[in-house]
Amino acid sequence: MSLFEKHQSLINQATQALHARTFYAAFVEQPLPAVYGERADEDARNKFAQLLGKKFEELHQADPSHWLGQEESPYTQDQLGILYPAFSVDTLVDRSKKAYHSWRKITPQDRAGILIESLERIKARFFEIAYATMHTTGQGFMMAFQASGPHAADRALEAIVAGYEELTRFPVETVWDKPMGKYNLQLKKEWKAVPKGISVVIGCSTFPTWNSVPGIYASLITGNAVIVKPHPGAILPTAIVVAEIQKVLLESNIDPNVCQLAVDVADKTITKALAEHADVKLIDFTGNSDFGTYLESIKGKAVFTEKTGVNSVIIDSVDDVDKVAANLAFSLSLYSGQMCTAPQNFYIPESGIKSSAGHITVDDFTQKLIGQINALVENPKAGPFVLGAIQNKKTSDRVNDVDKLPGKVLLKSKALENPMFKNARTATPAVLEIEASQKDVFSKELFGPIALIIKTKNTDQSISLAKEMAEKHGAISCGAYTTDATVKEKIADEMAQVATPVSFNLVGGIYLNQHAAFSDFHVTGGNPAGNASFTNPDFVTRRFTWVGQRELV
Amino acid sequence: MSLFEKHQSLINQATQALHARTFYAAFVEQPLPAVYGERADEDARNKFAQLLGKKFEELHQADPSHWLGQEESPYTQDQLGILYPAFSVDTLVDRSKKAYHSWRKITPQDRAGILIESLERIKARFFEIAYATMHTTGQGFMMAFQASGPHAADRALEAIVAGYEELTRFPVETVWDKPMGKYNLQLKKEWKAVPKGISVVIGCSTFPTWNSVPGIYASLITGNAVIVKPHPGAILPTAIVVAEIQKVLLESNIDPNVCQLAVDVADKTITKALAEHADVKLIDFTGNSDFGTYLESIKGKAVFTEKTGVNSVIIDSVDDVDKVAANLAFSLSLYSGQMCTAPQNFYIPESGIKSSAGHITVDDFTQKLIGQINALVENPKAGPFVLGAIQNKKTSDRVNDVDKLPGKVLLKSKALENPMFKNARTATPAVLEIEASQKDVFSKELFGPIALIIKTKNTDQSISLAKEMAEKHGAISCGAYTTDATVKEKIADEMAQVATPVSFNLVGGIYLNQHAAFSDFHVTGGNPAGNASFTNPDFVTRRFTWVGQRELV
Repeated sequence: MSLFEKHQSLINQATQALHARTFYAAFVEQPLPAVYGERADEDARNKFAQLLGKKFEELHQADPSHWLGQEESPYTQDQLGILYPAFSVDTLVDRSKKAYHSWRKITPQDRAGILIESLERIKARFFEIAYATMHTTGQGFMMAFQASGPHAADRALEAIVAGYEELTRFPVETVWDKPMGKYNLQLKKEWKAVPKGISVVIGCSTFPTWNSVPGIYASLITGNAVIVKPHPGAILPTAIVVAEIQKVLLESNIDPNVCQLAVDVADKTITKALAEHADVKLIDFTGNSDFGTYLESIKGKAVFTEKTGVNSVIIDSVDDVDKVAANLAFSLSLYSGQMCTAPQNFYIPESGIKSSAGHITVDDFTQKLIGQINALVENPKAGPFVLGAIQNKKTSDRVNDVDKLPGKVLLKSKALENPMFKNARTATPAVLEIEASQKDVFSKELFGPIALIIKTKNTDQSISLAKEMAEKHGAISCGAYTTDATVKEKIADEMAQVATPVSFNLVGGIYLNQHAAFSDFHVTGGNPAGNASFTNPDFVTRRFTWVGQRELV
Repeated sequence: MSLFEKHQSLINQATQALHARTFYAAFVEQPLPAVYGERADEDARNKFAQLLGKKFEELHQADPSHWLGQEESPYTQDQLGILYPAFSVDTLVDRSKKAYHSWRKITPQDRAGILIESLERIKARFFEIAYATMHTTGQGFMMAFQASGPHAADRALEAIVAGYEELTRFPVETVWDKPMGKYNLQLKKEWKAVPKGISVVIGCSTFPTWNSVPGIYASLITGNAVIVKPHPGAILPTAIVVAEIQKVLLESNIDPNVCQLAVDVADKTITKALAEHADVKLIDFTGNSDFGTYLESIKGKAVFTEKTGVNSVIIDSVDDVDKVAANLAFSLSLYSGQMCTAPQNFYIPESGIKSSAGHITVDDFTQKLIGQINALVENPKAGPFVLGAIQNKKTSDRVNDVDKLPGKVLLKSKALENPMFKNARTATPAVLEIEASQKDVFSKELFGPIALIIKTKNTDQSISLAKEMAEKHGAISCGAYTTDATVKEKIADEMAQVATPVSFNLVGGIYLNQHAAFSDFHVTGGNPAGNASFTNPDFVTRRFTWVGQRELV
């Protein structure tokens, strides 16, 4: 049985899900022993401990020029000490070019089989990847497990089936049979989905696998060779993924250089040299807007970016204000606001809002929000695990420096003690009140757990500001609370025009930060927050070219 | 019955054809009285004559700032004297912005119905459009009828159904129903295909409707407002198309400014101002590479280009050399080499080629090709009508100046008398022999009826040169003649890697220049000849953004 046959029913299910867009998950998001093995957690903790301070030897990439690595755990603030094989850009590209030809020539079916098999192998290492993610990104264990494990694998599967569908959308060959009156003109025609060539996938420090596997698998399914360049601060989760892909390639007699890991250190990056290399045709990037915009400007490449945005919450009217405050407090606190979907700007009319329990002033609302943040933070069974740690010291500095912003600090950030890691770099959410006129303050991303309460004249101004932010500076998510159907329609229409998805009236266990595979298009690609979307058809079709050939029958 | 219901079976047939990619044509390509009306030809000739020297009053675009027009017939070398309403760029964009909102809000079904209805109306004017095309582009009547009439309408229909399919590919709404153990989390989700906004379609002087209607209809079906900027030398065919679209919009109570005509004159063009306008989000262009490359570099736009290329014919071995020479002579002569798919570089091994009748030297082959060109040109029933006239005097000059190129002129171009138009600007094909080392001569497009015979060491060098030309300078078509299966496979694979479609061993009544709607992707988008393709999924998906919204059930 081929790997394609082995995984065919999964391909069919996932393809149906991609079009139904209702709930579907191929991988279980809970770290259940029954699913992942009784000893999975303990084994993974041991394996992770054994990797520290050593060379990472799992990659099938021979003859490195040197070994490097400078990852640091946000929980211990110690170096992980793991060294990865490093190569010159020319070596990486040369190996990629060579491997490419073996990969482009096999069928979409064979590629799909190999790639889904690699996800099966990665699944067996979800716990290990979770610890690797925790100790590079600062995510809490649960998020690290979910985001880097099953959710990432679902996003990868989504990219595989989206690509497979596009590759098989037109016939491999047909007879073009044109009636010419006395005879028929017949041409045998064939079509090939020709891959673009070499793809470079540039990772970020906060979601090393979740944000990178869609690009990796989208490029691979469409026949391109991939060079994966993780962020120097979060290599290990990606290294495990690449190692598993390489093992399955090797077992299938394919050159493992079809998918290479390219590592560097922060003060000597190879990213520009890779991206600008003439042989590199595809670039995927998650990270800051300046670098993303530079990448988009490189000529002759198809570039897929997820950059930064300014996410808004429009508060017009609510049913139960306490539930709304609790939901938003969690959205703000989850991974200490280090998600690209975390809300930042909270627009609320200065005259207050309606609720089912009567009128709520801005101060009432703000106090309820702060109360819910404090309750979450101070809950020892929840706070440290929901907030996790701060990946980058610059983020801590930004949060600590909010009193230098021209707003009124309503809640100061503080360090939060983590019961397991005394040295963890932590920061609880800060809440500031900013005037609607102070656009220079709230029109940029303040990455980290920072909430700005912006008093507006009315909801129309709130919508107008949220729209302006999305149009000019990008937005990946938007929350809105309204009990008025007309206002709701207006918010939906105005934000749709700036390509921003809106979550309405979320309360309870679902948050505006969450974008589910097979259902939510993550980043629309239609505003400055990024030019690509997980996983719409463009995300795969731009990675290959339809080329026909024809001859007389 | 809605227009959608009226045209639904056509939509279904055309969608099936788009995926089957075998022969399909919704519009009959022969100018048959039985199909288009007994008096269609005569009426059209009269109507065309009546348009000359007058204002074109059919457009629903009020209050022009002035009237202009400088079209000239390549057949008479006289001005047509037709004046079109002209507007400032700001007026055009303001009207477009306003009209956009009425158009974006109607359903894909309603848009499809209106757009197909407009094709029905255009069909009734195919003969008139044919005369308009003849007397602006210089095409012979038959090509003018086919290319600007039924073939263009088929390409437009192809864009409509490709867009309609993408717009209806994901559900309008669904319930996302996630099992959470003790309860199910249910979100109602909706998705909208949000148009990009304003689209500018820039036409060329040689195929004013065929090259422009795919972009016009692709932008319209996906909800964008379109400003059509024809080439100043070929406005009339496009003006008739836009007028018919506006009439159907008006009948459907839609602001006709959804599709506006924007005219200018050669020495005072508005193209850059339109393209660079901040509110313009989509640009379609057919024309020269320099301007196309400039357009591609404008930030913040989705740009679809068909530029120029260097098309090759690889001659390795043949069955019947006379049939091959006849086929290629026709390809070269058709519309005097003014097609973007016309062959230019003919690579042939210096040792000659095999044929079923024995060995053929390069001189034998060249003489046969020249013999077939002369036979076609000198046939008074075919020559003047196949060659047509030369659109631009610069093209005549280039053909007449071939003796200044560093090659051996084997056949000189000459003027060809047209029995109906004594003053027609004509030029028969020139044939030159160029050394394979003279890459600077054959690595650019020599637009017009110019064939370069390039002697190579062997077929491997022929392939290598054809590939290099396509990769560096672009290619839209490629012809290849070989009786060797291994060579054929090599040519197909090498040219596919530079995204160039290959026509193998064509003889008889089918030519490498011809790209059929619903079957041949025209321009692949994968080499410098252009970044877009008629009509692959990208051609429509890049014109809108998928945006979701969600709320608790």
